[in-house]
Amino acid sequence: MITEEQVRQALEKVMDPELKRDLVELGMVRNVEIQDSQVRFILALTTLACPLKDQIIAEAKAAVLALDGVKEVEVELTEMSAEEKKRILPDHDQPGVAERFNHIEHVIAVMSGKGGVGKSLVAGLLAVALRREGHQVGILDADITGPSIPRMFFPTRQWPKGSPLGILPVESKTGIKVMSINLLLHSEDQAVIWRGPLISGAIKQFWGDVVWGDLDYLIVDLPPGTSDAALTVMQSLPLSGVVLVTSPQGLADMVVKKAAQMTVQLNVPIMGLIENMSYVVCPDTGKKLEVFGPSKSAVMAKQLYVPLLGQLPIEPQIAELCDAGRIEDYPAEEFASIARKLAEIALPVRQPMFPVSRTK
Amino acid sequence: MITEEQVRQALEKVMDPELKRDLVELGMVRNVEIQDSQVRFILALTTLACPLKDQIIAEAKAAVLALDGVKEVEVELTEMSAEEKKRILPDHDQPGVAERFNHIEHVIAVMSGKGGVGKSLVAGLLAVALRREGHQVGILDADITGPSIPRMFFPTRQWPKGSPLGILPVESKTGIKVMSINLLLHSEDQAVIWRGPLISGAIKQFWGDVVWGDLDYLIVDLPPGTSDAALTVMQSLPLSGVVLVTSPQGLADMVVKKAAQMTVQLNVPIMGLIENMSYVVCPDTGKKLEVFGPSKSAVMAKQLYVPLLGQLPIEPQIAELCDAGRIEDYPAEEFASIARKLAEIALPVRQPMFPVSRTK
Repeated sequence: MITEEQVRQALEKVMDPELKRDLVELGMVRNVEIQDSQVRFILALTTLACPLKDQIIAEAKAAVLALDGVKEVEVELTEMSAEEKKRILPDHDQPGVAERFNHIEHVIAVMSGKGGVGKSLVAGLLAVALRREGHQVGILDADITGPSIPRMFFPTRQWPKGSPLGILPVESKTGIKVMSINLLLHSEDQAVIWRGPLISGAIKQFWGDVVWGDLDYLIVDLPPGTSDAALTVMQSLPLSGVVLVTSPQGLADMVVKKAAQMTVQLNVPIMGLIENMSYVVCPDTGKKLEVFGPSKSAVMAKQLYVPLLGQLPIEPQIAELCDAGRIEDYPAEEFASIARKLAEIALPVRQPMFPVSRTK
Repeated sequence: MITEEQVRQALEKVMDPELKRDLVELGMVRNVEIQDSQVRFILALTTLACPLKDQIIAEAKAAVLALDGVKEVEVELTEMSAEEKKRILPDHDQPGVAERFNHIEHVIAVMSGKGGVGKSLVAGLLAVALRREGHQVGILDADITGPSIPRMFFPTRQWPKGSPLGILPVESKTGIKVMSINLLLHSEDQAVIWRGPLISGAIKQFWGDVVWGDLDYLIVDLPPGTSDAALTVMQSLPLSGVVLVTSPQGLADMVVKKAAQMTVQLNVPIMGLIENMSYVVCPDTGKKLEVFGPSKSAVMAKQLYVPLLGQLPIEPQIAELCDAGRIEDYPAEEFASIARKLAEIALPVRQPMFPVSRTK
């Protein structure tokens, strides 16, 4: 004969994927009824619109079905009252709640100071390479006025869903979690004409109010410049370090050095330098054409005392794939070794200097 | 016999190039002494460090020498007292004084939203082409965190000089006046880690406190993005219009459209679109390689209802010249026609919405 106690013990092993506590502890399991080999109970969710609803139900059913003697499990759903929700989500109207339930091992910012050197491309390919190695990976697009990440990863328009804890990132086809202002705009061409404080606020929300869950690596794609966005990321997010991206383009070296100086001033380690657009391979002759002039990255890496992680060519194919939301189809062998090198040297995240949940 | 009256009348025709008033009216001419064919007088300048000192002396001498019977002119210099200066420069400690003495016919902002598409290059080449047509041209580098203009125009480090009215821009070898934060920094690699309000303040100073003098065209080089710098330029400067720069690079079209939308929202006309990095010419085969994928600018120009002003190739030579401060040595024939088209359609500056001199 099955007891209610047995059923509850089984459900204690099922975790709410967001709240990271078991269903019984959360007070979600109610009205357990047992008739011979049939078990029925009510599952009280924080919201019936919960996008993870099906997963929770499936896991709860499986756990009870695993009990000896149980042949059938019926689950009825209900929604918690505001009062009940408040008990388990102490201040669920406050910003930064999601942050407390996220567990992010490494946060790597991709930065260059100068625009158009392929920062977003490097951020995207880095995420793809780490994902291919089996890691849980997210990308926080901190470029609020020129967000490029969603276009690379999604062939069609995507909308993030909400959950009681915050906003759920959108998952790419290989399971990379993406959050970007462009996922929240009416149209991707819409301009975000915001001064600094709003830019900083959005980035803090992407850290504190997004349900990233468990991540091995969160890649942060920074906009060009050393103003609000970069300052906020370096001051408010617990960075493992920064990857600098440069190109042989005139002036890039100077502007990238400004970015390097900023990381030094803000005490964030530089993990390495990547040079993009180093050359084009002529399809007819196979020769390397240095269309932006000769490479300066080896010299720059020495001047900055950082490793040169790699030099990437301009490839028309990658532009096409990125435009079609298919960056994950690009082989990018050269990136696998870069990602492995970074994974080796990435330190776990440091304590944030100004924890986001305590600021507004 | 020459009279003091004649000397004074001659000097009434000499203007102070900054204050735009004649030397006599400004009270600069003192102690006129005449001995036969020899004239001596004291010239009281606002500052003996005045960088235009030699020009003023030369013009004053020439004016007096032109009088019948004058064979020799001797000028002694002195500096006005603080009280005297105050009389002619009513609030010379207030910001925005220079603005009242500048006369700028057209202000054209070069914008793209996206970084690295060659905005600064287009701004620089546009200035060079307009200068070659005989116009008086200045460049205001509004990219405070990633300023690229000085490196293009000056082979060696330059420092702007001060004058009683404000900061004097640095002149290039063909006479283009340049102001950029990089001219004011200790080292060009120094990072400017400023949040938005300081960025906006610097741009307003470059407009209000720089002695541009008489200009036919002031080209404003905007940073990427649609945040503080772009907002300040569009709201505080009397723009004739905006030139949009794009490239066939993946995602550029989307981000440039955001920039276009911003100009519409802020009621600033778009004068045209320029596509940069359209192709590379293979030095061996002479074939055009579309290394960033096929051009999208014709379609984009139609969508935005603006003229496509030109398509520029990637040229390794231009990168080298820009890096060496020798952009003015680049022939840039394709730019001559672009500059002429722009000169035709550029409207004189509009009234600023928020005059800079009245804001702080």
